Amino acid sequence: MTKIAVLGLGAMGRSIALALSRNGHSLTVWNRTHAKAQALASDRIVASPTVARTIAPAELVIVCVLDQTAAGQIAGDFPDMSGKVVVNLTNGTPDEAIGFARRLDRKNARLLSGGIMAVPPIMGTSDALILYSGDQHAYEDHLPTLMALGSAQFMGDDLRLAPLNDLALLAGMYGVFSGAAHAFAMFRASGRPAGELAPLLKQWLGAMIETLDEMAAQVDSGDHVTGVVSNLAMQAIALNNIVAASRDLGVGPALMVPMQQLVAARVDKGHGREDISGVVVELLDAPAV
Amino acid sequence: MTKIAVLGLGAMGRSIALALSRNGHSLTVWNRTHAKAQALASDRIVASPTVARTIAPAELVIVCVLDQTAAGQIAGDFPDMSGKVVVNLTNGTPDEAIGFARRLDRKNARLLSGGIMAVPPIMGTSDALILYSGDQHAYEDHLPTLMALGSAQFMGDDLRLAPLNDLALLAGMYGVFSGAAHAFAMFRASGRPAGELAPLLKQWLGAMIETLDEMAAQVDSGDHVTGVVSNLAMQAIALNNIVAASRDLGVGPALMVPMQQLVAARVDKGHGREDISGVVVELLDAPAV
Repeated sequence: MTKIAVLGLGAMGRSIALALSRNGHSLTVWNRTHAKAQALASDRIVASPTVARTIAPAELVIVCVLDQTAAGQIAGDFPDMSGKVVVNLTNGTPDEAIGFARRLDRKNARLLSGGIMAVPPIMGTSDALILYSGDQHAYEDHLPTLMALGSAQFMGDDLRLAPLNDLALLAGMYGVFSGAAHAFAMFRASGRPAGELAPLLKQWLGAMIETLDEMAAQVDSGDHVTGVVSNLAMQAIALNNIVAASRDLGVGPALMVPMQQLVAARVDKGHGREDISGVVVELLDAPAV
Repeated sequence: MTKIAVLGLGAMGRSIALALSRNGHSLTVWNRTHAKAQALASDRIVASPTVARTIAPAELVIVCVLDQTAAGQIAGDFPDMSGKVVVNLTNGTPDEAIGFARRLDRKNARLLSGGIMAVPPIMGTSDALILYSGDQHAYEDHLPTLMALGSAQFMGDDLRLAPLNDLALLAGMYGVFSGAAHAFAMFRASGRPAGELAPLLKQWLGAMIETLDEMAAQVDSGDHVTGVVSNLAMQAIALNNIVAASRDLGVGPALMVPMQQLVAARVDKGHGREDISGVVVELLDAPAV
C-alpha cells in the first residue's frame, strides 16, 4: 500500500483520513492542534506532532487545511520532497494554486491541485467528486489510492484548472441556491409552505439545466441573437415582475437585482434581441470591483 | 368545439392562437394593431377589429398581452361576461392578478389566472407547462381545450397562485442562469471555452437540485442547524474564494456578491452553524427595498 500523510484534520481532512483508513491504508496525520491528530489515532493512523515527521515516511502527501495561507505555511516547512507527490485539496483560487506551487519550488515534489465537490459525510463514496489538475503522471500513479476518496476526474496539467473548475461549479451551485432561496422566500411570505413549491421547482430547474449547453455554445460563438426564443427585452419584463412581486410580498429582492440590472444594462446598450447568454458579455466587460 | 377568443397577438399570443387553430379550434383574434390580427387570419381564425366583437361569440376568452396594465385596459372594455370564462395568461404579479379580477368585478365572468412556463416555439407541445389558478370548475370545463396549449396544472382557487408559482419558478430559473453565466464567464476569462465546463456543470447542478427538498424542509421547520454538513461559516469562505478568483480573472462578481453578503450577514449575527437555508430568513427579514 501507498504510504500516505494527511496534513490538516478539520471536518474535511478528518473525513479524508478516515476514508483512506477504511480502505486499508496506513497513514500518518498532523494537525496544528495536536489533540485533533491524537483523537484520530488508531491501528492504521499514526498521529505525528510535526509536519516534517508526518511526511518523512510518505509517498503521497495530502494537504487539506482552512485556506491557502495555512497551506502555504505548511509547504514552507517541507524538506526536499524528491519521490513524493503532494496533493493540495485546500479550497482556494486558481492564483493561490500557483502560489502554493511557488512555495514548493526547488523542493522536487510532484504536485497536484484538487477541488473537492463534496461535503465531508460523503467522502469515500462514489458520490464525492474530486477534481485534480497538475502532474498527470503523479495523478495516474496514485489514482488507485485517490479513488478511496471518491470519484476522481483529471482536468489538465495546469494547476489552476482544478480550483477553476471547483469555483466555477460552486458559483453555479450558489446560483441554484440563490434562485431556490428566493423562490422559497416568496412562498413563505405568501403564507404557503416552501415544500409545496419544491417538486415543481426541481422539475422546472432540471429542464432549465438542459438549456445550459445552448448558453455555453452562444458564449463561445459570441452569437447571442440567432434562434433566440425569449430575448432580453422580454426577459427584462419578467425580471421586473419578479422584483415587484417580491417587494409586494416583503421579500428582500437582493438575490434577483443583479440579474435584473445586468439584463436592463444589456437592453439599454441596444442588445435587447440577445438571449440570456448576453449577460456573460456584461460580466466580462464589467470592471471587477 | 369551444368558441374561443384570443386577445393579444405578440409572440406568445400568436403561438397560443396557432396552437389552438392547429388543434382544430375556430377562433376570433384581436390585437391593438389590427394588421397583426389580419396577418393571422385563416380558415379557422377570424381577425376582429374590436375587443367587444372578438369576445361576443366566445365561451373561452384568453388574454395574453405585454403586461397587466394592458390586460386591465382590455378588461375595462368587456361587456357582461355571463357564461364566459376568462383566462388571463399575461405575465404579472400576484397582486396584479387580483387587480385584473377587480376590473371584471360584476361582469359575471368566471376567471382563471395563468402562468406560462414555456417559450413561444414550444407552445402546443407537452413540454410547455401552463399553471392555472382561480375558478376550478371553469378550469375543468375547459381543460380539454387548454390542453391544446401544453401540459396544464391547477394550483388552487386563489387567483394569485398561478402568478406566484410562475414568478417563483422564474426566480429559480434566473438563479440557475446567474450561476451558469458567472461560471461560464470565469472559464472565458481563463481563456477556456464555456463548452468545456458545460457537461460537468449540468451534472453538478442536477445533483444540487436534489438537495432542494431538504432546503424547503429546513425553511418550513425553521430548523436550519440539525444535520448540517456544510455550515454557513464554511460556505462564507468558499463564497469569498469565488469572488476573489472572479476579480483575479477580471470577471464582474455582481451575480455572486448578494449571496456572499447574505451569508456573511447571517454568520455575523451568530448563525454560522446554519445551513444555506438560513439565507431565506435573511430575505424575509430584509426590508424590501
